[in-house]
Amino acid sequence: MIAVPDLSAVKQALAAQRIETPSWAFGNSGTRFKVFAQPGVPRTPEEKIADAATVNRFTGAAPSVALHIPWDRVDDYAALARYAGDLGVSVGAINTNVFQDDDYKLGSVTNPDPGIRRKATDHLLEAVAVMDATGSRDLKLWFSDGINYPGQDDLRDRQDRLATALREAYDRLGDDQRILLEYKLFEPAFYATDVPDWGTSFAHCVELGPKATVCIDTGHHAPGTNIEFIVAFLLRQDRLGAFDFNSRFYADDDLMAGAADPFQLFRIMYEIVRADALDPARGINFMLDQCHNIEAKIPAVIRSVMNVQEATAKALLVDRAALAAAQRSGGVLEANAVFMDAYNTDVRPLLAEVRADQGLDPDPVAAYKRSGYQERITADRAGGEQAGWGA
Amino acid sequence: MIAVPDLSAVKQALAAQRIETPSWAFGNSGTRFKVFAQPGVPRTPEEKIADAATVNRFTGAAPSVALHIPWDRVDDYAALARYAGDLGVSVGAINTNVFQDDDYKLGSVTNPDPGIRRKATDHLLEAVAVMDATGSRDLKLWFSDGINYPGQDDLRDRQDRLATALREAYDRLGDDQRILLEYKLFEPAFYATDVPDWGTSFAHCVELGPKATVCIDTGHHAPGTNIEFIVAFLLRQDRLGAFDFNSRFYADDDLMAGAADPFQLFRIMYEIVRADALDPARGINFMLDQCHNIEAKIPAVIRSVMNVQEATAKALLVDRAALAAAQRSGGVLEANAVFMDAYNTDVRPLLAEVRADQGLDPDPVAAYKRSGYQERITADRAGGEQAGWGA
Amino acid sequence: MIAVPDLSAVKQALAAQRIETPSWAFGNSGTRFKVFAQPGVPRTPEEKIADAATVNRFTGAAPSVALHIPWDRVDDYAALARYAGDLGVSVGAINTNVFQDDDYKLGSVTNPDPGIRRKATDHLLEAVAVMDATGSRDLKLWFSDGINYPGQDDLRDRQDRLATALREAYDRLGDDQRILLEYKLFEPAFYATDVPDWGTSFAHCVELGPKATVCIDTGHHAPGTNIEFIVAFLLRQDRLGAFDFNSRFYADDDLMAGAADPFQLFRIMYEIVRADALDPARGINFMLDQCHNIEAKIPAVIRSVMNVQEATAKALLVDRAALAAAQRSGGVLEANAVFMDAYNTDVRPLLAEVRADQGLDPDPVAAYKRSGYQERITADRAGGEQAGWGA
Amino acid sequence: MIAVPDLSAVKQALAAQRIETPSWAFGNSGTRFKVFAQPGVPRTPEEKIADAATVNRFTGAAPSVALHIPWDRVDDYAALARYAGDLGVSVGAINTNVFQDDDYKLGSVTNPDPGIRRKATDHLLEAVAVMDATGSRDLKLWFSDGINYPGQDDLRDRQDRLATALREAYDRLGDDQRILLEYKLFEPAFYATDVPDWGTSFAHCVELGPKATVCIDTGHHAPGTNIEFIVAFLLRQDRLGAFDFNSRFYADDDLMAGAADPFQLFRIMYEIVRADALDPARGINFMLDQCHNIEAKIPAVIRSVMNVQEATAKALLVDRAALAAAQRSGGVLEANAVFMDAYNTDVRPLLAEVRADQGLDPDPVAAYKRSGYQERITADRAGGEQAGWGA
Repeated sequence: MIAVPDLSAVKQALAAQRIETPSWAFGNSGTRFKVFAQPGVPRTPEEKIADAATVNRFTGAAPSVALHIPWDRVDDYAALARYAGDLGVSVGAINTNVFQDDDYKLGSVTNPDPGIRRKATDHLLEAVAVMDATGSRDLKLWFSDGINYPGQDDLRDRQDRLATALREAYDRLGDDQRILLEYKLFEPAFYATDVPDWGTSFAHCVELGPKATVCIDTGHHAPGTNIEFIVAFLLRQDRLGAFDFNSRFYADDDLMAGAADPFQLFRIMYEIVRADALDPARGINFMLDQCHNIEAKIPAVIRSVMNVQEATAKALLVDRAALAAAQRSGGVLEANAVFMDAYNTDVRPLLAEVRADQGLDPDPVAAYKRSGYQERITADRAGGEQAGWGA
Repeated sequence: MIAVPDLSAVKQALAAQRIETPSWAFGNSGTRFKVFAQPGVPRTPEEKIADAATVNRFTGAAPSVALHIPWDRVDDYAALARYAGDLGVSVGAINTNVFQDDDYKLGSVTNPDPGIRRKATDHLLEAVAVMDATGSRDLKLWFSDGINYPGQDDLRDRQDRLATALREAYDRLGDDQRILLEYKLFEPAFYATDVPDWGTSFAHCVELGPKATVCIDTGHHAPGTNIEFIVAFLLRQDRLGAFDFNSRFYADDDLMAGAADPFQLFRIMYEIVRADALDPARGINFMLDQCHNIEAKIPAVIRSVMNVQEATAKALLVDRAALAAAQRSGGVLEANAVFMDAYNTDVRPLLAEVRADQGLDPDPVAAYKRSGYQERITADRAGGEQAGWGA
Repeated sequence: MIAVPDLSAVKQALAAQRIETPSWAFGNSGTRFKVFAQPGVPRTPEEKIADAATVNRFTGAAPSVALHIPWDRVDDYAALARYAGDLGVSVGAINTNVFQDDDYKLGSVTNPDPGIRRKATDHLLEAVAVMDATGSRDLKLWFSDGINYPGQDDLRDRQDRLATALREAYDRLGDDQRILLEYKLFEPAFYATDVPDWGTSFAHCVELGPKATVCIDTGHHAPGTNIEFIVAFLLRQDRLGAFDFNSRFYADDDLMAGAADPFQLFRIMYEIVRADALDPARGINFMLDQCHNIEAKIPAVIRSVMNVQEATAKALLVDRAALAAAQRSGGVLEANAVFMDAYNTDVRPLLAEVRADQGLDPDPVAAYKRSGYQERITADRAGGEQAGWGA
Repeated sequence: MIAVPDLSAVKQALAAQRIETPSWAFGNSGTRFKVFAQPGVPRTPEEKIADAATVNRFTGAAPSVALHIPWDRVDDYAALARYAGDLGVSVGAINTNVFQDDDYKLGSVTNPDPGIRRKATDHLLEAVAVMDATGSRDLKLWFSDGINYPGQDDLRDRQDRLATALREAYDRLGDDQRILLEYKLFEPAFYATDVPDWGTSFAHCVELGPKATVCIDTGHHAPGTNIEFIVAFLLRQDRLGAFDFNSRFYADDDLMAGAADPFQLFRIMYEIVRADALDPARGINFMLDQCHNIEAKIPAVIRSVMNVQEATAKALLVDRAALAAAQRSGGVLEANAVFMDAYNTDVRPLLAEVRADQGLDPDPVAAYKRSGYQERITADRAGGEQAGWGA
């Protein structure tokens, strides 16, 4: 029902799309109530990278993997990057972790104690050193810092401390490196979080300079927040650096991207397409950030990649000329209908074609299951300690 | 239980506090379901100003009144300002209204139709002319603009149109005039609003220049939003221009300030006090913006003024030295306890003293009721058409 | 990609599906800020019914129309029902309105004033008389009753008064009549609503007897509420009487059904299909309840009917055997994949076939536009006063 | 400012108030990101009980302690109860735990696997045996059961399984025993929870019989939920069995009761007072259920007890006669003012008197700090493994 001028351009865009997977999605994860272990879960950074490479092997769309320091701490990061390269993937964003040390009970870079702030800031600098060694471009910063009770600490002082630490990390960046500053409404802080929303992240980025950009985690908003608006707005300001894709019904549920509200994911990807920001050259890092607490991890990541691809395909199929005409003429129902026509299209055959063109199995999940990889890792990864999200 | 170094300073600050009342709060208001009329409601801008002056007469804390154009359109604004002055109040913020003309069905300054955008922008310029005539400093801009359906219009184009109109209004401002840019999550737009959150307002203000500041309406946030954080953050950025105080349990309920969550109002006022921003010289306009749908309007405004005063008194009573000491030492419970000590104090006797010192009745609501004003306006304001919020 | 045992059964179910349209959706509506008038809007109950019949003519799926008393008050209800019948539609649910009289400022059946409670209860009884005259089965009760401020009235007393009024209406019902008791979180009451959630409605229904059932308005829930759970639960309790379909991003936005979250509508309809409750004999009334504030009304209703049909078609296409097998074996991803396979199917061709089989145009919106009906009513309905939602 | 007919009755009610503390609040707790350990945390059920008894020693208001099985599993429950008795406290509610065994990944009593359902149900029966041994009256049931993805399992089937397990547990209850059925919106399940709201809990209780009642955890609701309405409604239905008090800004934050919204806690306690349900003879169990992740645990529990007491004191001070008169006359502002008069009163002096009358220190937190208990347990509880919420 849709008039798309050039289907081959759509297929080309889909074939070029890149989605980054997170090393920690392959480890065990859970809620505060319980972490359920799964067979075959990696025990080392290398095994996580092998799983990420497997996702890439079956999807052809996930050629980089984000690391989390210290969860993925190794002695020789250059060697780790070479290992990844040998498996066909590169090292993506380096994620800092300043929330799991006992010192960080009352905050890391915003802690009232200057010694703890120093330690936390040093960790940020260490992460840039890892970037130097691995060739990563992106320093991803998420601060769980915040307070649980009114009065517990001074909101304004904490912003000043945050700005100081960010400045030091920013100044340490190399020419081709940048900061992705994530925000989150709440959890683990339950009264006030130091970077709670995109506005806070944006304002700090502006203060820092052009190498600082905002990272949108799709699960980190208050109920009712229109995420695609934020996407469009940050693109207009040239401050959108990355996504952490996942989905949620309630809070930061970290479900598979597209699982809870596929229409929302389509609307987000439409703003990307509309701004020509799908092109890797534009520099936006499309990452997954998920917790597969009860489902098998590798196929869950594969499914998530496919969900992002499907949303993107639908976004690419929007008849932009018809849409613009309807919008200009004030045709509320007509414009919405053009938009929904694309959403209602079943794009799975189109993506199957794109995969076949790349020499991939059109059904990545089925191909993965047939591959024997899961059975192999279940058998091989005996002994040692399984990696965990949070360990 | 509280050690406050200087109670006279507290009383002095309370005596100096200024809260601006909105002319429209005295008119009839309601929901989409029904507007319930009340006896004695004003029929003219002059009668609204008379009611505002009455609130000031009994509270001593509300010496200015915000107008809403075209609801308060008159031929001679200078004369209206003199009339207000004669009653002891000045004209405060001039509020624009670009949402009640049939032309604005699909937006005002962001409408896809350039002719309608021109008309809306002209209205903003007209409002500055009103400011010139009345001596007002503040141009308050609230845009109801937005869309109801995905695809209905282009989110990015609308931002460009908004920026264009804001620039034109900004450039028209006199040296001592400024813009207060309000934001609101939703209503009347139900899918995307063009200025939905403080970040959007802030970014436009930065783009515009130093005379553009953010107005926080306490009812315009997503559930769970920490408003005092925004207050602290905007004060740090020197971009907090004003408040629209009211309270809510659900959406933009426009109940009396402090009625739904008095603890939140206290936390907000604490950030004001902590940043020394209570002082009128600091330039923050503390306005009310409420709808008294079912309760008597003048006493409701008086009560709202008193609620803001009580929250302020508690904020002033926080033992800042003890708080800072507890915060620095990481005493979570101790810092919270210092904070709560102030909140749990009954400040009504203190405010009664402040009023008595000013020659006011210590109980403004009772004094109003005894005054006969309500009976007089009920008798006098017969005939004509009652003013309405929205008319 | 889906194995459906019997596609003809699916088509048969779709052909038999019945969706009730609301007379008020054809009138003007808006927000508290503004009601934008539209050309051709009905001026009388008869004209509303004509519009509803037009929706039925093009969709073949909307053979009844709900009335709202007093908005649709006429002298001769039997004649009105005959008029509807002549146009091919029947009179559906009778909606009471106890929120627009000045007396109801502080409530209707829960008002502290016994005289006002009597008046409101009498209106409920009058509505049953209308049902007797029109042959309607369903008495739909929505009470906007509630309070805006803590302490304003006694929560418990109001429940007792509500129970008394409901009992009187219940006892007045004929053998084939029943009550649909709607609930709503908030608006127009902003602190406490007397029937705020399904639990309250359910408990009153149980207290009343078997002829009292719950009506689920899909826009009347707190953020994060899982509506399909409520559907499944009420079906299990045999207390689901009806839906008011519409959609929302924030509060009770009353957008077109399926416009905001088509995946949610699919999940809701799946619970209906799973419980075999689509069959009209099961007695569930699938109504629309929407406000087309800015979009053309008749095509908006047609689109809404189509959206419900599409969600239903997808629900019918779920491979129930495969789903049950995956669920039983604990296959989280596998069960979800079976479910999503149906959702991701483009069912528009299937519904086009169903329409063609019924002698309808496969594209009801286009057929309506070609029909000239809109031009005709725009020309004909000059003079008089347009009907309004809320008037 | 308040006319309270009989202050001695208020003091008597406060002196008689009973609040139950949870054994797990004394253990370590945290979020999915990190559990921060604290010095002196108990290692055994006996040490937890000792801490609970300490809270009672300083508040005089916490004479029972709830246990959690298996966290508090011992060989001889009768001995444990005697140990508690020797310390001046009794064993309160027995909490079941069917969420931390690996078998419960996909649910406990609602699991698709009948063997796992059997195991879970047996645990419920085991808990009743513990009740028999300890003399506990209350079986508290919280089911974390639910699903993370649409389609993962059948919503209706899970209700049937739930009903079956509840029936078996109910039938096992002794004459003086009862079920408290807790509900929770989400977490750890992120799409659908099997007992998500009070309506679901209520309906199951009605199905079970008079010994089944609802437990309201104040942190388990959707944003915007009016909790005091639920309290009033369940009291009217005679189905309110217990509270789990805590407070939250966002989700189930488990902060100290009264810390986030003290006005809400007052409104809740007012409904209790209004229904004469404060009296222990009425059978409502006022429990705390909190996680003190970053603050010292024993003083946090003491503070929480005090917060509930303060809210209760304010509720008792409401001038009921004046309130009823204002309500009856439709005085919105007047009724609200009577209500707020009580809330705005500083009740700390009154509670200090009540404590002094009981021979307690008027400042329980300060008295605890002076007592040396914290230093003693910090020194004594070396070695062994600290108890944890979730372990």
